[in-house]
Amino acid sequence: MNRRAFLARGAAVTGVAASAGLATGANAQELAGQPWERVYGTGFTGYGQPSRFEQPVMRHIGRPYGDLAPGSGASLVPIESLDGIITPSGLHNIRSHSGTPDIDPKQHQLLLHGLVARPLMFSMDALWRYPMTTRTYFLECSGNSNRALAPQPAQVPAGAMHGNIACSEWTGVPLRMLLEEAGLLPQAKWLLAEGADSAHMSRSIPLEKAMDDALIALYQNGERLRPEQGYPVRLLLPGWEGNMSVKWLRRIKATEGPTHTKDETSKYTDLQPDGRALQFTFEMGVKSVITKPSSTMKLPRNGFYEISGIAWSGAGRIRRVEVSADGGATWTDAALTGEERPKSLVRFRLPWEWTGKEAVLQSRATDEKGQVQPTRTAWRAQYSPGNIYHNHSIVSWSVGADGSVKNVYV
Amino acid sequence: MNRRAFLARGAAVTGVAASAGLATGANAQELAGQPWERVYGTGFTGYGQPSRFEQPVMRHIGRPYGDLAPGSGASLVPIESLDGIITPSGLHNIRSHSGTPDIDPKQHQLLLHGLVARPLMFSMDALWRYPMTTRTYFLECSGNSNRALAPQPAQVPAGAMHGNIACSEWTGVPLRMLLEEAGLLPQAKWLLAEGADSAHMSRSIPLEKAMDDALIALYQNGERLRPEQGYPVRLLLPGWEGNMSVKWLRRIKATEGPTHTKDETSKYTDLQPDGRALQFTFEMGVKSVITKPSSTMKLPRNGFYEISGIAWSGAGRIRRVEVSADGGATWTDAALTGEERPKSLVRFRLPWEWTGKEAVLQSRATDEKGQVQPTRTAWRAQYSPGNIYHNHSIVSWSVGADGSVKNVYV
Repeated sequence: MNRRAFLARGAAVTGVAASAGLATGANAQELAGQPWERVYGTGFTGYGQPSRFEQPVMRHIGRPYGDLAPGSGASLVPIESLDGIITPSGLHNIRSHSGTPDIDPKQHQLLLHGLVARPLMFSMDALWRYPMTTRTYFLECSGNSNRALAPQPAQVPAGAMHGNIACSEWTGVPLRMLLEEAGLLPQAKWLLAEGADSAHMSRSIPLEKAMDDALIALYQNGERLRPEQGYPVRLLLPGWEGNMSVKWLRRIKATEGPTHTKDETSKYTDLQPDGRALQFTFEMGVKSVITKPSSTMKLPRNGFYEISGIAWSGAGRIRRVEVSADGGATWTDAALTGEERPKSLVRFRLPWEWTGKEAVLQSRATDEKGQVQPTRTAWRAQYSPGNIYHNHSIVSWSVGADGSVKNVYV
Repeated sequence: MNRRAFLARGAAVTGVAASAGLATGANAQELAGQPWERVYGTGFTGYGQPSRFEQPVMRHIGRPYGDLAPGSGASLVPIESLDGIITPSGLHNIRSHSGTPDIDPKQHQLLLHGLVARPLMFSMDALWRYPMTTRTYFLECSGNSNRALAPQPAQVPAGAMHGNIACSEWTGVPLRMLLEEAGLLPQAKWLLAEGADSAHMSRSIPLEKAMDDALIALYQNGERLRPEQGYPVRLLLPGWEGNMSVKWLRRIKATEGPTHTKDETSKYTDLQPDGRALQFTFEMGVKSVITKPSSTMKLPRNGFYEISGIAWSGAGRIRRVEVSADGGATWTDAALTGEERPKSLVRFRLPWEWTGKEAVLQSRATDEKGQVQPTRTAWRAQYSPGNIYHNHSIVSWSVGADGSVKNVYV
């Protein structure tokens, strides 16, 4: 289970890649070509779209209230179909409480008020003049992977369980700069951030985070924010549970303490074994999931494959991802891409030879603080069985003798 | 002209940001809200799109043959409307010779043949099993900025002149791995790469590049390649002129020397002062352009602004970008984001106070090899006046007393 083995035994792959009768086929391919090589292609588009052959690659939509509230719920990333670190903006995860508002950026304003010396109102044009910064961060809903807490393991694609996570390049104005301009009063210790959706989704944020790495984000993967990610402006709290990065941001109010809004008392709290709810688990835990291969896929035959997946931690950088093919008995370090970026997705990769026998694939991430992703059993032992938030435990995929990949609890 | 000045004199910005009658306005905003805050928003989408208010942000399409050949030409990135490093895939630049083919990935194959021990044919499913790598690279057409060689400076947005450049996160199989599997014969020194468009666009590539950092790219910004960028598979030659990264890749043939295809003899050569055409300028020069503010924009009033733009070099990393506001008489170092990534776009930023007087903004990039972006005059002196490729000279924008930003030759 290592990279050299893949190259040294490349012949095993060759046997798969090369089709029968290649000598004849090669000449045929060179001379004839496919139908699309014989017709003039389509013209330019002002804004491009994926191929029609990729239409099955869509977000996994969860609407717990159905048509009663079609924009309340979550929409998850098809991580099983993606590769790399960046999530395409069209497939970014969504958590919304009252749908996506249709905001005119010429009319929208951001108010900064409360315990400040100078309340300020910003038009989007005014924000455009400020110094900006560009960084890559993940955004994970604290309810991600709650479907992996069901009594029986669901046989659905990886993204339908663990896809409430995405990663983008964000560009915006450091929140600290705007707060300094407004002049915080000494008694200001928290902020209230409120969205312009009809739910007025709002959360309380400790001032230290706001003064650290919080962004007033205007651009996502190079272009202006998508409506479902908060157009025209959102808060971005790197590494913290997703819904605190308030979308469609309309106001920030400096306060003495937390406001205890409906969105932080009725939801996003962790049920303890004694039945009490623990409030304000802000930082997302160290986590990883194998996306290739993953649940509902089928390996066509034995031989070499690449095991690949994503890892992240709200505490900073990922230092290590280990992969097991025997349900956690032995582990091998995977190669990492993007580990230099804190609070970003990291892609891990490890070549693997599937001999045709049953196997259980797992990944285990460690972050720069030394925190290690826990087993499902160890994670569950910390909470009441009813807890549905902040599940960052190890994910297990079994590979059957027929090559079918299934979700299992180990 | 520095970052500290912006913060120290933040009051100047405050005067702009804060609207009149804020005390009253603040309460009104808090209580009332905008129309979209009073209606339930729209439901989830499987694949998201930009806001309808961003529809003017489109590629700048150039079709030199008009309706006779609607897919032959180039489509340029609206760099003036973007920020960050990543180009959204929907706005990636396009250079195509016979339009975009509509390729079925189940039927498409990649042939590796010529001077190899074992010719190989790869289906897309076979490539999926190989070890991949993820890296961020720019792609610039060698004809980029040729519009800036017109006798009179065009008054068009920055992207319509300098937008034949984009930057994506690419994921794919190292070409070296496939070549090693096929077993190159000793006499193989070059490759021919050919596309599956009806033009069968093809280029010759020195073997050293193929064995260095060339990718067989399958994913762009996390998802499968867009059709206009080569779906389902393209070659990616980091830092080299864009059309060598052959799209819709159907075959790679190992050869003894360059093939001298129509696409490398009729085009992409540099006219020398003596009238001869220099072939095979592969590496793109060190370059930068200010995108904010830029041509056709208008600064609403004097005060602080952020000057921001993009820089890149085919030779590796960007080490430095300097900005001038006086037409090159004095220069100040800008802050850089992304300079750790070789052959990628880098974002540079510098706060600037516009006093209301006329100014000429320029940027000058230096790469890790010590190469410095030349002035327009110095660059032109190397070539025949008819040369239209590889223009990487300094770009100048004038700011008039009325705040209007214009393209000028300095």
